[in-house]
Amino acid sequence: MYNRIYNFSAGPSMLPVPVLEKARDEMLNCRESGMSVMEMSHRSKVYDNIIKEAEAALREVMSIPDNYKVMFLQGGASMQFANIPMNLLKTGKADYIVTGQFSGKAYKEAQKYGDIHLAATTKDENFTRIPRQEELDLRPDADYVHICFNNTIFGTKWNYIPETNGVPLVADMSSCILSEPVDVSKFGLIYAGAQKNVAPAGLTIVIAREDLLREDLPEYVPTMCNYATMAANESMYNTPPCYPIYICLLVLNWIKELGGLEAMKKINENKAAMLYKCLEESKLFNNPNDVASRSMMNVTFRAEDDEINAKFVKESTAAGFSNLKGHRSVGGMRASIYNAMPTEGVQALCEFIKKFESENL
Amino acid sequence: MYNRIYNFSAGPSMLPVPVLEKARDEMLNCRESGMSVMEMSHRSKVYDNIIKEAEAALREVMSIPDNYKVMFLQGGASMQFANIPMNLLKTGKADYIVTGQFSGKAYKEAQKYGDIHLAATTKDENFTRIPRQEELDLRPDADYVHICFNNTIFGTKWNYIPETNGVPLVADMSSCILSEPVDVSKFGLIYAGAQKNVAPAGLTIVIAREDLLREDLPEYVPTMCNYATMAANESMYNTPPCYPIYICLLVLNWIKELGGLEAMKKINENKAAMLYKCLEESKLFNNPNDVASRSMMNVTFRAEDDEINAKFVKESTAAGFSNLKGHRSVGGMRASIYNAMPTEGVQALCEFIKKFESENL
Repeated sequence: MYNRIYNFSAGPSMLPVPVLEKARDEMLNCRESGMSVMEMSHRSKVYDNIIKEAEAALREVMSIPDNYKVMFLQGGASMQFANIPMNLLKTGKADYIVTGQFSGKAYKEAQKYGDIHLAATTKDENFTRIPRQEELDLRPDADYVHICFNNTIFGTKWNYIPETNGVPLVADMSSCILSEPVDVSKFGLIYAGAQKNVAPAGLTIVIAREDLLREDLPEYVPTMCNYATMAANESMYNTPPCYPIYICLLVLNWIKELGGLEAMKKINENKAAMLYKCLEESKLFNNPNDVASRSMMNVTFRAEDDEINAKFVKESTAAGFSNLKGHRSVGGMRASIYNAMPTEGVQALCEFIKKFESENL
Repeated sequence: MYNRIYNFSAGPSMLPVPVLEKARDEMLNCRESGMSVMEMSHRSKVYDNIIKEAEAALREVMSIPDNYKVMFLQGGASMQFANIPMNLLKTGKADYIVTGQFSGKAYKEAQKYGDIHLAATTKDENFTRIPRQEELDLRPDADYVHICFNNTIFGTKWNYIPETNGVPLVADMSSCILSEPVDVSKFGLIYAGAQKNVAPAGLTIVIAREDLLREDLPEYVPTMCNYATMAANESMYNTPPCYPIYICLLVLNWIKELGGLEAMKKINENKAAMLYKCLEESKLFNNPNDVASRSMMNVTFRAEDDEINAKFVKESTAAGFSNLKGHRSVGGMRASIYNAMPTEGVQALCEFIKKFESENL
């Protein structure tokens, strides 16, 4: 009815239609306030309810323990690449595991601030898998261990939580947050740019164990980058990204109505299994990754012949599947099938793959 | 028709109804893309057009010279309070003029990074006026001079551009950008949180003379805080705040349709003159500020009796005027009459003030 298409963008990406409909319907007057959420003072009673409901819903949906602070920040994961070492380094040592482009950027940025050790990488295997526990060269006296939980570009995911023997584990969950239940208590800090599974771009969620946060940081740390200050002010040290937080609340309510993250996981597992099965059966396309490291959110595939890949991108776009072209560092195709991608979208893609294959084998 | 109210919030604040209507109508399918702007890859052709149109419209509306870079950033003015010294200090010296709360915060934050000199302040006059040129104790070898062009809380404005004798002038224009024409060439850098006159919260505009930007900053400066890097990547170093940039474009198009900033200024001057005249004629309420320093965007007023102020806030709220309560550091009332506040809203407020006065004198 809206002439919507199946949008396989890696991010920003699809939002649930009921969320967009509600945002549309409330655009000029939200909650009988006589104004749009975009026009509300962040200190107003109506908006205060919205941000508090968003935090409460996130805590409920993710089962976040009480000793974790939730922050609604700005700057994306890229800003956190600096904020994390600026806030968490005490001895000055941190261990990074590099499993793709963003964990590589995080590793590089952290080097500005301390003794940063590359604990493991699968770069020489083109990031087709996540390292195994026994491959991790972790230092017992590091202030934290950093991982990227789901690698958007390469389509891999940590399908286990690494044992760090008491060293806080920090995870970038930008492209998998809210896709399935996760035991928050196993992490020191979780962060995520919202623009894949939570809300529009411009909101970054940080969930941090409160004992890791402290006000007394090096003098050069901008106040806006001080997690303890942001947490103490309940994300209201200055004007927060109000509208993305509102959309985040609508998305969380949508997840709750579906049955929470257990239900979300079942839907996502089913979508991913359908697409991986289609690729396993394909004689034309192949997913290059280790089966144990497969992402449930980003599925890469390619034909050996790059002309076939280009033809697939062109024809799939014409058929109403958008953003299937893979990242330039990987080539081929990538289907990002986040929470808001309906099962029918993945079914339609599988059918298209089969049809394309029958015409091009 | 939407049960909208007159919202005098200091920010986030009103957006033009035609902008909200367009955003509503395009919520599920923008520009025949089959998706919301919130769902678009920031690297897509459709979104690339949106951000380029937004920059072009800003350049056109503000007559920004070609040797200035335009950046769409995150973090609000508060983030720039650190970014400015981190990027612009070379000798390590900067001069700050403190005319209210936000310029005070900027001054305090800058002290982390160098030899920061208080060149003037009107604090001991409760910020009721802007200092005169001859009161400014400027250092000829400073790297820049920082001012807040319009003081949201105290309702004052720089109604002249200070002479800095070649030292770059940096101005926070969060609460007056786009309210009237400004000669950008007189400034080294202009910045503004968007949530008052431009777009929803979560977007910060920085306009900087390109010779002031450099990549080689101190090691501790986060990459996301490096203006040269952001400018070189045309605000796409990482995912920008896509939706606020889209709303910014719609607002700029609305200003263009009105006739640009000259026309906007006439409308704003008329609204402000109407309200100041009403207050001058009032026997109950008073605007405390120096006439030459009056803000065109934020008009403060109060009765001597605080019970009257409280009664006014209560009754005006009940009558459909929201957010008229003054900031706690000033007391009384404040009417923020940004671009999107219609003339009828100010007329209605003036009538309400007169009616209230007749009932309470």
